[in-house]
Amino acid sequence: MLKRDYDQVCSIARTLEVLGERWTLLVIRDVFNGRRRFDQIQENLGVARNVLTSRLARLLGEGILEKRRYQDHPPRHEYFLTEKGLELWPVLISVMHWGDRHLAEAGPPMLIRHKRCDGLVDERGLCESCGDRLDARDAYTEHGPGAAAESRRSAAA
Amino acid sequence: MLKRDYDQVCSIARTLEVLGERWTLLVIRDVFNGRRRFDQIQENLGVARNVLTSRLARLLGEGILEKRRYQDHPPRHEYFLTEKGLELWPVLISVMHWGDRHLAEAGPPMLIRHKRCDGLVDERGLCESCGDRLDARDAYTEHGPGAAAESRRSAAA
Repeated sequence: MLKRDYDQVCSIARTLEVLGERWTLLVIRDVFNGRRRFDQIQENLGVARNVLTSRLARLLGEGILEKRRYQDHPPRHEYFLTEKGLELWPVLISVMHWGDRHLAEAGPPMLIRHKRCDGLVDERGLCESCGDRLDARDAYTEHGPGAAAESRRSAAA
Repeated sequence: MLKRDYDQVCSIARTLEVLGERWTLLVIRDVFNGRRRFDQIQENLGVARNVLTSRLARLLGEGILEKRRYQDHPPRHEYFLTEKGLELWPVLISVMHWGDRHLAEAGPPMLIRHKRCDGLVDERGLCESCGDRLDARDAYTEHGPGAAAESRRSAAA
């Protein structure tokens, strides 16, 4: 895809080759947020089923997601982040905070908090309250002031 | 583009609407790395000129880049990051480090260091040496062990 040698060995370019396809980072976001089943992700994103199938296959192939069977007849799977996938948490955090700051007139749609002290997580993945450096497993999410009414309704349901 | 209300108010989804187009984050990377002129960026990325024109127009429209005239006859411009654009530094840093860790068999192609103490910058944009929390202006780049021979040659030229 990229012409120059320099770009082919750039870790940003290489990462975008994996994550840059439309929907891919949103699929990862959904799995981070606990949507583990094909139909949940498909319904939430409104993405075509064949496109989602392709994106999930790529993420499995790259070792970012893994699937675990939760039902045998008929076979059904759930998707989980691998360690490699969980390490994308700082990417999602930094993307989210930039959007919160520049594209969220009504305030952040989602807040991320430190499980241990409930402090807000900043754009570096540090706890604003206790200063700890956090990873994906240290945090939980809740609706922020910019969450849509629709979203709050579906969360309550 | 996105169907569900929830996604429309997600700061990740909104940010990808701005940055997720093919080439866009690489154009931003190039400007961060000091490529300020259309021809420099075009040649480095090997992207079609009409595509680059479109991406630059979008980034100007979003207030991520600004252009400054450096020559009047004929008029020529250079591109600079605005404050909003400079705030994308943590996004680039986190994307780059994930790629370094998972997609760079020969080691990081590029190293980012703290200007004041030359310490390496980690995936949270913190200095590994002195611990300072850094922004774009606090750091410089140099070739890492994974830099391609081609890239080192063109840097030496």
